[in-house]
Amino acid sequence: MESLFKDPHQLSPKAIRSLIRKGKWDRPTAGLAMGYAQANLVILSEKYAFDFLLFCQRNPKPCPLLEVLEAGEYRTRFLSQEADIRTDIPRYNIYREGKLEATVKEIKGLWRKDFVTFLLGCSFSFEEALLRAKIPVRHIEQNKNVPMFISNISCKSSGIFHGPMVVTMRPIPSHKVSRAVQITSRYALVHGAPVHIGDPSLIGIKDLKRPDFGDPVTIKKNEVPVFWACGVTPQVIVMEAKPNLCITHTPGHMFISDLLNEELAIF
Amino acid sequence: MESLFKDPHQLSPKAIRSLIRKGKWDRPTAGLAMGYAQANLVILSEKYAFDFLLFCQRNPKPCPLLEVLEAGEYRTRFLSQEADIRTDIPRYNIYREGKLEATVKEIKGLWRKDFVTFLLGCSFSFEEALLRAKIPVRHIEQNKNVPMFISNISCKSSGIFHGPMVVTMRPIPSHKVSRAVQITSRYALVHGAPVHIGDPSLIGIKDLKRPDFGDPVTIKKNEVPVFWACGVTPQVIVMEAKPNLCITHTPGHMFISDLLNEELAIF
Repeated sequence: MESLFKDPHQLSPKAIRSLIRKGKWDRPTAGLAMGYAQANLVILSEKYAFDFLLFCQRNPKPCPLLEVLEAGEYRTRFLSQEADIRTDIPRYNIYREGKLEATVKEIKGLWRKDFVTFLLGCSFSFEEALLRAKIPVRHIEQNKNVPMFISNISCKSSGIFHGPMVVTMRPIPSHKVSRAVQITSRYALVHGAPVHIGDPSLIGIKDLKRPDFGDPVTIKKNEVPVFWACGVTPQVIVMEAKPNLCITHTPGHMFISDLLNEELAIF
Repeated sequence: MESLFKDPHQLSPKAIRSLIRKGKWDRPTAGLAMGYAQANLVILSEKYAFDFLLFCQRNPKPCPLLEVLEAGEYRTRFLSQEADIRTDIPRYNIYREGKLEATVKEIKGLWRKDFVTFLLGCSFSFEEALLRAKIPVRHIEQNKNVPMFISNISCKSSGIFHGPMVVTMRPIPSHKVSRAVQITSRYALVHGAPVHIGDPSLIGIKDLKRPDFGDPVTIKKNEVPVFWACGVTPQVIVMEAKPNLCITHTPGHMFISDLLNEELAIF
């Protein structure tokens, strides 16, 4: 347990993954390895892999692919050269027929040769960029989960995968909305620019105080609600498609990569 | 034949596709439907579809996917809502075991239910943007094909698909190189920003006067050679992989979409 005497927030991605692999860190990863990209995880049988890959290609804002591993492959090659996808994530959700069956700390025993692994970008990366530009991120200020809403924006379907886009909302001061668009445009691999700015009812959201997931946050007088595509979308889509087995990270318990957020920026 | 009395360069994408469908236009498409995106075509059996889709995900600069059609589907949904991929391209190349077998004007008779269609971005889109910004595009000035080189940059492999990146070279005046980077960065779906700027030998190119494909162009004293990922890459990669059957457009004879280049710009 000696490593835990150090502040885990000071550890490198590799050191944190090593703790996670040994079962010594099974908590959320927000705030760890600042500057490094974290990723969402979806594991599906090969049977669904083409359709899900195509779903991501058609819906790059909610489903920005950072890396896809071939069937049976559990070692990453691009996000890290030494990570093991079966052990290096703090908590995994096991879904059967779309229902959460268990939450576990590793999936070595469940691993199958037909598993295809998808790692998708996470908004932590662009939130760091917003904060660096002194753009407030309300749920971080208020120590809450980001508010998420099921919008009426349809994803483009692919095979069994179809459904609405989930969006996150961040209230941004009117005079900083342009800057927030510019900054997040650089991060197309972590949801990119907003999908909607302003009146929530136009995308089917009735009440900003009642998010579908996460917590409500304060919106000030001079602020505009700004909506980004959310990484919960692929999870909701996959759950609705009810594949016989699907493994994801447990929300908030992400894969920590060796890539700097800056390396993901598209320009 | 009445439509041909009009200048074809003034026709809409829909009108040109209609001419092509009737077999009345089987020439190159450069300069047609200015402002609209044109696309490269690759058709493969379902057997190779996941690997090729993953190859494109891993190599977005040479292989920028604009649209992928599910197995058996020959009607586009996003690039146009009324195009038929079997008839709406002026000329098709039929490759068996990696060898060019025939060049044909339509592929209705060859169509199979296991065919998966990939449409990829084409540099015509960003060249138009460069010209609008008064950045010279030498091969257009000299009425030649763009010079293309097989570089020593390796693509990331996927299944049977692997090989070097093919690049195009455009000489850009030194003081306009920054602007050329900025402009083409907006067009990530049509190869995006350059992959290399300056000394060709650093990417394995020995002689700019001897391109592997296309024509050599003049480089002036004040100009820097600037290299972009090239849409010939996927064709070379697919030919080297030698699938039993592959259908592509004939180089230069592209699919003309209903999307404006501006609609493809990522910011």
